[in-house]
Amino acid sequence: MVAINADRLWGRIEALSRFTDPAAPWTRRSFDHQFSCGRAWLEQEFQSAGLTVSMDAGGNLLGRLPGTGSGACPLVSGSHSDTVPSGGRFDGALGLLAALEAAQSIQEQKISLSHPLEVVDFLAEEPSEFGLSCIGSRSWAGLLTASDLERRSPSHLTLAAAIDSVGGSAERLVSPLRGHGSVAAYVELHIEQGLVLAARNAQIGVVSSIVGIRRFEVTIEGRADHAGTTPMALRRDALVGAAHFIRAVDDLARARPGDHPYLVATVGKLSLLPNAINAVPGSVSMILEIRSTDPEAMTHFEGALWKQTEGELKPRGLRLVISPLSQTLPTICSPHIQDTIEQAAAAAGTRSTRLPSGAGHDAVFVARLAPVGMIFVPCKEGRSHVPEEWAEPPDCAKGAQILAETLVLLDQTLPV
Amino acid sequence: MVAINADRLWGRIEALSRFTDPAAPWTRRSFDHQFSCGRAWLEQEFQSAGLTVSMDAGGNLLGRLPGTGSGACPLVSGSHSDTVPSGGRFDGALGLLAALEAAQSIQEQKISLSHPLEVVDFLAEEPSEFGLSCIGSRSWAGLLTASDLERRSPSHLTLAAAIDSVGGSAERLVSPLRGHGSVAAYVELHIEQGLVLAARNAQIGVVSSIVGIRRFEVTIEGRADHAGTTPMALRRDALVGAAHFIRAVDDLARARPGDHPYLVATVGKLSLLPNAINAVPGSVSMILEIRSTDPEAMTHFEGALWKQTEGELKPRGLRLVISPLSQTLPTICSPHIQDTIEQAAAAAGTRSTRLPSGAGHDAVFVARLAPVGMIFVPCKEGRSHVPEEWAEPPDCAKGAQILAETLVLLDQTLPV
Repeated sequence: MVAINADRLWGRIEALSRFTDPAAPWTRRSFDHQFSCGRAWLEQEFQSAGLTVSMDAGGNLLGRLPGTGSGACPLVSGSHSDTVPSGGRFDGALGLLAALEAAQSIQEQKISLSHPLEVVDFLAEEPSEFGLSCIGSRSWAGLLTASDLERRSPSHLTLAAAIDSVGGSAERLVSPLRGHGSVAAYVELHIEQGLVLAARNAQIGVVSSIVGIRRFEVTIEGRADHAGTTPMALRRDALVGAAHFIRAVDDLARARPGDHPYLVATVGKLSLLPNAINAVPGSVSMILEIRSTDPEAMTHFEGALWKQTEGELKPRGLRLVISPLSQTLPTICSPHIQDTIEQAAAAAGTRSTRLPSGAGHDAVFVARLAPVGMIFVPCKEGRSHVPEEWAEPPDCAKGAQILAETLVLLDQTLPV
Repeated sequence: MVAINADRLWGRIEALSRFTDPAAPWTRRSFDHQFSCGRAWLEQEFQSAGLTVSMDAGGNLLGRLPGTGSGACPLVSGSHSDTVPSGGRFDGALGLLAALEAAQSIQEQKISLSHPLEVVDFLAEEPSEFGLSCIGSRSWAGLLTASDLERRSPSHLTLAAAIDSVGGSAERLVSPLRGHGSVAAYVELHIEQGLVLAARNAQIGVVSSIVGIRRFEVTIEGRADHAGTTPMALRRDALVGAAHFIRAVDDLARARPGDHPYLVATVGKLSLLPNAINAVPGSVSMILEIRSTDPEAMTHFEGALWKQTEGELKPRGLRLVISPLSQTLPTICSPHIQDTIEQAAAAAGTRSTRLPSGAGHDAVFVARLAPVGMIFVPCKEGRSHVPEEWAEPPDCAKGAQILAETLVLLDQTLPV
């Protein structure tokens, strides 16, 4: 077993968290001053851990340990150092610093790896000021389009210029930075951002897949009327129609036997017109988000939802208008990496459980070019993207240890 | 039968409508320049109709025909000349100009009345820049408080100064301008602002009562969670709770046998937090408005609603918080005036129907001191408070004729 240094890991989590907008802890936005200071510190830490530091054209900060096998593709682990505004100290930071801790421990304990080991701080995993997330991992897969690079921030900087400003080279992003098969495996540790581990009393989550996401704008059109003078029977109340719709979303998503495959559906955003105390609502606009590991389950869910809602709205004189906004496919995590994480957890005497990731991660884009796996550790009350986001030090250390062990086992089992 | 002059009435409706903010027809806000110009024109019209013009301390414009009975209390009819922003040409204006037409026709046809007849343009019936409605009729009933008079507009004028600026005298509003029993009857013609007359194929509505209104702020408290990582079974989705609540409001308000007494209940305003595409809603705040002619029916409705909602929310881990905002009692229209309007309609060969008013009117405040009645005429698609607000000229004329006839009949039947 690799022995990691839990105190060093925790010290670095605290140190990186101090690079924050002091007015809104914890805020370290990609491309901002605190982000640059954090990266300067990270470079120092990478170097002191014995890693060779570089920056790629996508603005991703890399630290590399050489492998003994000549010409072997690297094992890669990491996450991201940026945060959402008023976010937490663990989302991204934990996976990045745990990868650093794993590499440093492997190095210190003179564990010889055939594959090179790369620690990566992907650029701008969180939605950036350019309205785009996972910028660094998209650049690996060659998924940044020319029009993406021309996106502008509120201060009118282009994304291309921003990538150049952090040390990348936007002009080289016309082709993928990493070809298919150029990475032996990518493993990312992350806080769960949910409550499944706690519900199953498990310390380690082995991610089976990352959900695909479909989003729709759903509008219910009725008729605005005076709320005093319009008897109930003459109303075409769009908010009552929306209430039927929201209940149908919830009922249908809960009614799937065994809750399998994983599917969640949410109306998170809603607005109504005229939104006045004394007016029957005339129209309601909502965003419906469906996430699942199984595209067929999503299609089946949608079909049932539209059918049930149409049936409920029509007799009420209400019209349902559906506009698809976006659609991504699920990402399947490598079965071999899943087995290896499970094996590492078992060897450490740790209860693990397989679960899907309901949140998106850089692994979604890395999966275009390499087998990927993810390790989850519990976080308090499942909360993330808030200042109160918290993971217990022993859980962080356990996650880092199992990450390190997983990388060693993958080095032994993956072809050089 | 009194014969009214339909063309003169329609000409005045068109003439008054031209006093509007040209940028936002039809806008004639109480206390603004267009309102003052409209009133200067109204004074001329009152005078040319043979009425004696005066202004009372509440800023109400009055035109008076003397009666033959010495010391008799006046019959009063009228409405208001102000509008909401981007409102219509009939709400208020029709009732005011129909009362003028009735008085002028009575005068011209030398129909002798025992009671004086007053035409009134109540000040600021619509919610004013001071956050208060029915300012003129409140002053009649002595319901303007010292703190009401100190209310300030966005430009920091006090209501007292505004009343003085239109010719009123705020310092005299410490006691009611009209004592109990000082008005023989108040009759107001108004557009229906609803769809009941059309549904019943009636030309004239005889208002039986004006609803009382109860308003509540209803908050559903759940827990904001990540919409991707939180399985359905672990959610406490406040918007799903709100959907149950909104459906319960609608279901219970519709489920009353025979729809009697009149009761409508509406959730017209709603906001949610965090209102993000990828977040399970953590809390939803709504305004519930219940209007009914029967306080007991409202209490019964509320009780059933809170009980049903509590039962639905508790198993979902959601909390219901109810804060009463305001409460007014229903206003009963005088049975004698109702009978008289019905008799006038029948004499004119016009289909009438009794119905409650779901909207508030100056009559609510005048009812504190005198018997009141209201006559409704149909308006297109039941719409009001919008530029498209419309009443057909023959419907306006029919309404004015029945108003005139009602006043003559009341003069004969009410004690001098």
